[in-house]
Amino acid sequence: MSEVVDKARIAKDASYALGVLSAAQKNEALLKMADHLVTRQTEIIAANAEDLERGRQTGLRTSLLDRLALDEDRIASMAEGLRQIVDLPDPVGETLQEIERPNGLRIQQLRVPIGLIGIIYEARPNVTVDAAGLCLKTGNAVVLRGGSAALSSNLQIIKILHDALAASAIPADALQIIEDANRSSVDEMLKLNGVIDTIIPRGGASLIQNVVQNATVPVIETGAGICHTYLDAEADPVMASDIALNAKVQRPSVCNAMETLLVHEGFAAEHLTAIAKRMKEDNVELRGDRRACTLVPGMAEASEQDWATEYNDYVLNVKIVSSLDEALLHIRRYGTMHSECIVTDNQANARRFLAEVDAAAVYHNASTRFTDGFEFGYGAEIGISTQKLHARGPMGLPALTSSKYIVEGTGQIRQ
Amino acid sequence: MSEVVDKARIAKDASYALGVLSAAQKNEALLKMADHLVTRQTEIIAANAEDLERGRQTGLRTSLLDRLALDEDRIASMAEGLRQIVDLPDPVGETLQEIERPNGLRIQQLRVPIGLIGIIYEARPNVTVDAAGLCLKTGNAVVLRGGSAALSSNLQIIKILHDALAASAIPADALQIIEDANRSSVDEMLKLNGVIDTIIPRGGASLIQNVVQNATVPVIETGAGICHTYLDAEADPVMASDIALNAKVQRPSVCNAMETLLVHEGFAAEHLTAIAKRMKEDNVELRGDRRACTLVPGMAEASEQDWATEYNDYVLNVKIVSSLDEALLHIRRYGTMHSECIVTDNQANARRFLAEVDAAAVYHNASTRFTDGFEFGYGAEIGISTQKLHARGPMGLPALTSSKYIVEGTGQIRQ
Repeated sequence: MSEVVDKARIAKDASYALGVLSAAQKNEALLKMADHLVTRQTEIIAANAEDLERGRQTGLRTSLLDRLALDEDRIASMAEGLRQIVDLPDPVGETLQEIERPNGLRIQQLRVPIGLIGIIYEARPNVTVDAAGLCLKTGNAVVLRGGSAALSSNLQIIKILHDALAASAIPADALQIIEDANRSSVDEMLKLNGVIDTIIPRGGASLIQNVVQNATVPVIETGAGICHTYLDAEADPVMASDIALNAKVQRPSVCNAMETLLVHEGFAAEHLTAIAKRMKEDNVELRGDRRACTLVPGMAEASEQDWATEYNDYVLNVKIVSSLDEALLHIRRYGTMHSECIVTDNQANARRFLAEVDAAAVYHNASTRFTDGFEFGYGAEIGISTQKLHARGPMGLPALTSSKYIVEGTGQIRQ
Repeated sequence: MSEVVDKARIAKDASYALGVLSAAQKNEALLKMADHLVTRQTEIIAANAEDLERGRQTGLRTSLLDRLALDEDRIASMAEGLRQIVDLPDPVGETLQEIERPNGLRIQQLRVPIGLIGIIYEARPNVTVDAAGLCLKTGNAVVLRGGSAALSSNLQIIKILHDALAASAIPADALQIIEDANRSSVDEMLKLNGVIDTIIPRGGASLIQNVVQNATVPVIETGAGICHTYLDAEADPVMASDIALNAKVQRPSVCNAMETLLVHEGFAAEHLTAIAKRMKEDNVELRGDRRACTLVPGMAEASEQDWATEYNDYVLNVKIVSSLDEALLHIRRYGTMHSECIVTDNQANARRFLAEVDAAAVYHNASTRFTDGFEFGYGAEIGISTQKLHARGPMGLPALTSSKYIVEGTGQIRQ
């Protein structure tokens, strides 16, 4: 039997015992996990050094080496992340619905764990700890498949977490990591229907697309963000400029950052040059449609491809529109249903934008950068779902649960 | 452009206008649809006669011809189904959550339509009307792909529904049917990510498996039911017998009917022969494990394959178990997470069964035949989900919705 099938079955078997544990039992285990990470950090740092050395030898980019690197501070913050998860309410067991039927049947719909979750991610050891914590807290067993560049670190972390779980109510078998670095191990996970209940990809566009295109197991897609900010004719100029700047430059590398600025012609005439100036001062490269290029000297013309690109970088498309409708059509065509914003003092236009734009989060007079589980007050974030089933937008702990109907009778049969 | 891509894009474009209609506007359109079906029933019956004639020529089985046939009564009941959908509350627009953040952001999570739903089903013209009604009621555009044996009936029905919609607020474009009878048109639908938001298969196991195995679009799986009834040592004999009989024979062809009876050895010794006798009187063929065969003379031995088969017929597996744990293990191994039942007066055993069995619906002292949207009081049923994401168990109208965050600010930017 392959490593994937073997470990997934072991984890699935363990999921039944894990699924009925109390919040207190799970929290106690998570705290032990946090403690063990800190007390055994030298082992983690040693394993991580192997990964880093191998990464340098194979020419891993500096930014990837940085994401891979662990030190005392980063391990402390991984442990702190687990402690924060402990402080969150456990959604499992919540009553979602109670139904009394005329025939006397009593039906309760309860929140239950999903069962066994597969997480596929890149060479980021912090995701190993975070995903383990989130899944176990919600009573789910988990099979992790991280990027191979982090394998030594991940194996050491899992070894330590297994030791922590050995002295807890959570069966250590519920936490598994795949060592097979071949891509085929990912493919195998994606098709393990009946064992793995859900796959969640965490990473860049190509990783996510591979999962979406090849999985037969249900997937929660945490997708790309081509986010727009639309400055309406009646936008407040200072607010518009501040929100646009924040959406673009506060952290350009993330999915809720703005990629395209849509500006009403009535607003652009007077205010676009000032906004463009601030963007340039912040090292943003601007690419515009023809009308924007006329207003802002020296701006390159955006290509068709540019409108459909998630830069995650200091690059911004700018388009002048003649109406709210033109802005809505552009968003419908190029948006990825992630986060979209209108800045305006016109309440009717705001209402239309909020109602008609089809996205996980739609904003009126606030930066799209707020689309985030912590900013929404969820205290955790599994990811930001850009699909419409199960969960949409920032996902807190309830996104890692399913439900189950409990039907209690006194001998009822169907007529 | 292919028919599928063309019609799906047209439907998607129409979904935006449909998505913001009021419940009253949608209900008015649905009532028109119902009226038109009845007043133009002769056209439907004529088209249906073509399908039936072709079906007879191609040797369609009698049971399939029966499902395909339409008459005045069946058309009246299709229209009545639409009127019942009108009477149900519209879930769209419901506030699921309101969050006030310390920074003043006001976040609302609202129920919204999914967008464009693809329905893939067999040669049952009533599903054409039912699926159209359920999707449009919830503000979703829909692309239907029914079994080719019903094509003439389906095209005539859609023509009539389009005429009804022409005089309504719902754009007729939101309702599309695929005429291409080649299997490739199904395959195309399954991969139309970004246009079709969700695929729902309605039909038998092979249709559903084709969708699950090949779709890259998110799917709501409405799956098979290998349902068990466990008669515990402390089951009331009369209740146990009545529930087992009902679960098996009241309608054996459906997914919530029982396929395997698990009987505690302490109960079996005294009561199994009487239950077996009633089953045989109702023409149920029994297949047992070795111990059951010893207790019930003339029972054939069940094969490994039998335990894993959804008969949907007058056939029942019977297994004697020595403990609740053995019953739980059997269900874990062979169950399809649909509906599972324990009959017992022992409250501790009942609690364990309800907590530990991983299924959409778990029953204590009632027949599994109640797993049904109407029996749960939902007034509609899109299907019974056997997956764990999005919806699980009988799906009412809310299963056809997604959600969206509306974030209102006063210029907030992220620090």
